[in-house]
Amino acid sequence: MMDRIFENVEIDKIAKNFQKAPHKIGHTHEADAEIIDLGVGCQNYLAITTDALVEEVRSGLYENPYFMGWMLAMVNFSDLAAVGADPLGLLLSISYSPNGNEKFITKLARGVSDACQELNTFVLGGDTNQGEDLLLSGCAVGLVPKQSALTRMGAKVNDRLYISYPAGLGNVFAFLKLSKMNFLIPSSFYKPIARIKEGRVIRDYANCCMDTSDGVLHTVDTLMRLNGLRFVLYNNWARILHPTACTITHIKKIPSWLVLAGIHGEYELVFTVSPQKEKDFFDAATRVGWTPLLIGEVCEGEGVNIQNSDTLKPLDTAAIRNLSEQAGSDPQAYVKKLIQMAKESGIH
Amino acid sequence: MMDRIFENVEIDKIAKNFQKAPHKIGHTHEADAEIIDLGVGCQNYLAITTDALVEEVRSGLYENPYFMGWMLAMVNFSDLAAVGADPLGLLLSISYSPNGNEKFITKLARGVSDACQELNTFVLGGDTNQGEDLLLSGCAVGLVPKQSALTRMGAKVNDRLYISYPAGLGNVFAFLKLSKMNFLIPSSFYKPIARIKEGRVIRDYANCCMDTSDGVLHTVDTLMRLNGLRFVLYNNWARILHPTACTITHIKKIPSWLVLAGIHGEYELVFTVSPQKEKDFFDAATRVGWTPLLIGEVCEGEGVNIQNSDTLKPLDTAAIRNLSEQAGSDPQAYVKKLIQMAKESGIH
Repeated sequence: MMDRIFENVEIDKIAKNFQKAPHKIGHTHEADAEIIDLGVGCQNYLAITTDALVEEVRSGLYENPYFMGWMLAMVNFSDLAAVGADPLGLLLSISYSPNGNEKFITKLARGVSDACQELNTFVLGGDTNQGEDLLLSGCAVGLVPKQSALTRMGAKVNDRLYISYPAGLGNVFAFLKLSKMNFLIPSSFYKPIARIKEGRVIRDYANCCMDTSDGVLHTVDTLMRLNGLRFVLYNNWARILHPTACTITHIKKIPSWLVLAGIHGEYELVFTVSPQKEKDFFDAATRVGWTPLLIGEVCEGEGVNIQNSDTLKPLDTAAIRNLSEQAGSDPQAYVKKLIQMAKESGIH
Repeated sequence: MMDRIFENVEIDKIAKNFQKAPHKIGHTHEADAEIIDLGVGCQNYLAITTDALVEEVRSGLYENPYFMGWMLAMVNFSDLAAVGADPLGLLLSISYSPNGNEKFITKLARGVSDACQELNTFVLGGDTNQGEDLLLSGCAVGLVPKQSALTRMGAKVNDRLYISYPAGLGNVFAFLKLSKMNFLIPSSFYKPIARIKEGRVIRDYANCCMDTSDGVLHTVDTLMRLNGLRFVLYNNWARILHPTACTITHIKKIPSWLVLAGIHGEYELVFTVSPQKEKDFFDAATRVGWTPLLIGEVCEGEGVNIQNSDTLKPLDTAAIRNLSEQAGSDPQAYVKKLIQMAKESGIH
């Protein structure tokens, strides 16, 4: 199932060269962060992840250095949130051209620092190089109680599918930015916060969890493939979509659910909860002032379906995901193909 | 003292933007890897470090993808060795151009994999991106018993200065490679191994430790500055220098100790041991089949000195270190200035 997705094939080509670490929990693709057994005497697993900003910078999607710094921290901490970890901190691997870039680097560092403070965590250290190209890579590390570590595995038939908060802003931001419609993007329109706080609640109730860093449909598709079950998304778009995403898609006359299909996500958490744990889960969420959003359910079978009133409409999520690889690095071509595919699907 | 070195000033410009993490042991510059307290119940500190290959690739010093992979792993594990940590594994952050680079990436992955196997450790995971530029960054993580964690701090007057094995091959390799004298470089001439095994012995006896990733003089200079003491190097070059380094410098008619001064190091460990612990340290080293090399001592005062029979000759290690920054990315100009400085120093 996983090998129908181009991106997974690319990862496996590299991963197949490496021996599996005996102290690593699970296999490639099975969790947002690596989960490592620290041995006897430790109640916690180590959670560790690395993520670089490459395409986002190269394409001009991220231009503001403060925003680059903020995102560099948040994309890494989001992976920790998705395994339920409490962050220990962040390491930075940064390379930049030395000529007159002092202000740029200071702003970038402030973005990183503010993101860490937002999550009550820290920059632990890093490596800086002076090169010709801008290189921004991070590594976040944290701890998760052994009995509470979340992976993408473990969904069960009848599980309820949830998302942490409304989604779609990531793709709207990318669409407007790459279409040179910056005037439609108010400041702080898109400033994701890794869902560390919510992850701490989710870890005690959910069967599986994954962040939406590559978009909601990408996440649901991956959970579907890894768990070998049917994932049904309710077409109650007003609930799952951020109001701004609804407004913009309405103005631009494109199907609103398309903002779930693009690959520029928004770092929400998608997870499944057994029906019998739902009440306790909601009580725990309420205690931290959070209302999780029910967006679907898990059934027997395979594939991603959209529920249109009483009928289930299959959605070819593999084709949607592979579009971004096929379109290469031409975002305009990608968006055009995406809109075409949405119109052909007959889903509204 | 630390602010006399350009490189440290650059690091501090970024680091000053970040709050100190309360669970991090020590401050910026004070250890090769970050040392993190995991809290109650854990007998070990977490050791974590990140290092990218930038200048080495850009300058053409590293051309072979297998070698790049080997080095990417070893440079990171060497930082763990220098704090006495047992590795848990490595994370990779790799970006490469997608066009026809499959063989390149497979060879690179094999280099990483072989390096990990050499050290009985593992690739835990990573992030791959497809971009225009080659980006190679790693993050190594390990554990060190709390009472044994090594930092660069703690040298005492009368300490004996040691190195793990003969040094200088890193700079000879760089010199020959960048002078297009590849024919003088036999295969496997320079294939460093992170001194994890030796670090496990050193951690129970040494007062401070640092690897020679930027050359031996760089390391001794940093230990001198951080500890505020005089570091004396014996001019018994036949002991400290790798035989090949002696041969090449003899042929090229340059002072042999110069291979300690360049910035392309060889991942040995430099450390100090109290005289009263020396016998036990040697016994422990012998048990793992290793003979540490005595290369100097720590005295009252400040600065790096070279012992020429009975006299101490001061060496301006700040000037030597800052040369590499001043010469920018022109390796020929750098080597020329280095040779000139060595001749003027009067040290043989």
